[in-house]
Amino acid sequence: MVVEEEICCSKTKVFIGRGVLKEAVHEIPKGCKIALIRQDSVDPSYLLQKVGRIEIEIVLRGGEESKSIESVLRIVGELYSKGFDRSDYLVALGGGTLSDTAGLAAALYLRGLNLVNVPTTLLAMVDAAVGGKVAVNMGNMKNVLGVFYQPSLVIIDLEFLSTLPKEELVNGLAEVVKYAFTLDSELYSYLKSNTTSILSMSGRALEEVIAMSVKNKLTIVREDPYDTKGVRVVLNYGHTVGHAIEALSHLRVGHGRAVAVGMVYEAIAGVELGYTKPHVVDKLVELLKAFGLPTSLEEVGLGSGISTEVFKAIVSRDKKVRRGKLLLPVVIDVGSWRAVEVPVEELVEVLVKCVK
Amino acid sequence: MVVEEEICCSKTKVFIGRGVLKEAVHEIPKGCKIALIRQDSVDPSYLLQKVGRIEIEIVLRGGEESKSIESVLRIVGELYSKGFDRSDYLVALGGGTLSDTAGLAAALYLRGLNLVNVPTTLLAMVDAAVGGKVAVNMGNMKNVLGVFYQPSLVIIDLEFLSTLPKEELVNGLAEVVKYAFTLDSELYSYLKSNTTSILSMSGRALEEVIAMSVKNKLTIVREDPYDTKGVRVVLNYGHTVGHAIEALSHLRVGHGRAVAVGMVYEAIAGVELGYTKPHVVDKLVELLKAFGLPTSLEEVGLGSGISTEVFKAIVSRDKKVRRGKLLLPVVIDVGSWRAVEVPVEELVEVLVKCVK
Repeated sequence: MVVEEEICCSKTKVFIGRGVLKEAVHEIPKGCKIALIRQDSVDPSYLLQKVGRIEIEIVLRGGEESKSIESVLRIVGELYSKGFDRSDYLVALGGGTLSDTAGLAAALYLRGLNLVNVPTTLLAMVDAAVGGKVAVNMGNMKNVLGVFYQPSLVIIDLEFLSTLPKEELVNGLAEVVKYAFTLDSELYSYLKSNTTSILSMSGRALEEVIAMSVKNKLTIVREDPYDTKGVRVVLNYGHTVGHAIEALSHLRVGHGRAVAVGMVYEAIAGVELGYTKPHVVDKLVELLKAFGLPTSLEEVGLGSGISTEVFKAIVSRDKKVRRGKLLLPVVIDVGSWRAVEVPVEELVEVLVKCVK
Repeated sequence: MVVEEEICCSKTKVFIGRGVLKEAVHEIPKGCKIALIRQDSVDPSYLLQKVGRIEIEIVLRGGEESKSIESVLRIVGELYSKGFDRSDYLVALGGGTLSDTAGLAAALYLRGLNLVNVPTTLLAMVDAAVGGKVAVNMGNMKNVLGVFYQPSLVIIDLEFLSTLPKEELVNGLAEVVKYAFTLDSELYSYLKSNTTSILSMSGRALEEVIAMSVKNKLTIVREDPYDTKGVRVVLNYGHTVGHAIEALSHLRVGHGRAVAVGMVYEAIAGVELGYTKPHVVDKLVELLKAFGLPTSLEEVGLGSGISTEVFKAIVSRDKKVRRGKLLLPVVIDVGSWRAVEVPVEELVEVLVKCVK
């Protein structure tokens, strides 16, 4: 399946399917140089076999630590020394942290060469690989250095998932559930009816789910490419609490699991604040459980609850806070949402109450 | 005068005029934080008087050396420590190298906060302040790290020119002449008829010339925002040879003077290659001389000529070279141009012949 989108003068072509790499690589014109930036844990042999000649191969470690400006400068230096120009290609092979770093290098090198995202985790396939957000950390300042840079090409080949641990698959499903509850009731029905085949990765169910997720994301990104219009904030659903859980667990709790729990508490808060229909919480918990995702702080080992002060400190630092108020996406009913401005104090109070 | 333009989903508002700063600063909403990044040689008192409260003031040295990733990281670190968010403002006060560095910091910080360019040299007013190209150097790799990032606001206040040395004014006029010969025969006529008042900076002639230049540049930038369509290359007219002159003189020859000489030799080469009408060279030399700009290598102290090898090495490294061919903008007649692909070997041969 091929999805094409133009976002702020940049064209992106997304290939989705098992074995689609073979076809997609023909998008890279002959004669162009190719740099492969890959995550150490990803076996490049399948990609190398299809792509053929590679001028540069740089291996980065996964995880937040390699998301640094030093990694970006290393890539840029190599591109320059091998005489890459702006018509050449950088292929980012790995999960979200890899494409964040490699994508920023691609954006910065001579003000941008062609970026090809080849995500290898479900989480990256449905989230980081499309939308153009790239960034690295500076010390403990997460994603403080970044830009919006659309990939020319995104190759979502389900072959890469065949060796993905089940836990990583489940991790990615949290973001899929996010699209369903905020934007797409059809996706919700599909997830509910096909839980087993999605989890077993049999047939085309997973491909369908990825395609629906990518389309949802691209629709939002096109409406709010630079995250300035209060639309893209919907992609943050479950993430305010989710980021707090990640921080409190010192990243021991994976992103998807943290977001799953975050969505539940944000849904409960949405009910408390009078926006969310109560049955949303039940449906959300039911679906997350069906996918084996956690739905409470206890399940992610934070059972002792969260102190109001710590929680407030974390939420206040959320990027979506403007002058003491957080722009919070709330689900109204399955597949519909709106953004509401909530004072941080009030939100923290409601959330701490929900948690108890 | 106010010019508005939308480039790839980004709106830019350009104020042009003497004393226009006072009016323009009202575009910055009350309650937003402001960081001032300024060049050490620029007196900030006029700006501070109009802008009022500044949260951060960072002083950078002018010149290529401060165009480094370290300067960018320093700015980003300060913004973060003062709690700046994406709705806040960064004001870049200085010449082109200052806005290159400050602009990249603005582009990268949390994927972009509002950038206000306040150019203080004529060269920056008619070139670097609009168009969105920002970049820093990495060692001897010039502009290797950069992005396209449109300023929200550009404030071109001619007050800043009142203390500008005459040589710096003349430096900026080279780029104005470039717009005239490549894009705008009306600007050419205006320059020819108003040489004296432009040079004396009396009346509104200079303001008129700046406005015409900015409009020409914005038209090109809108057509080719990411410099991928072979249109923006026109802004490079005179720059292939100009950059070679800058490099050969170890930056002793200023950018404008280098480009002036570059335009003459590229015009002669254009005639040799059969694209440029011969009278273009005479008109170009005449106008440059009227503004006190150099028109030959001798005049910039490179009278011994340029060795073919050195010249070829420099031209080959030009960013516009793809697979041995340079995309060269040639003037056809005053105010009209086209891009031609010339093998580097052939171009160097023609140029070296012209120089002798």
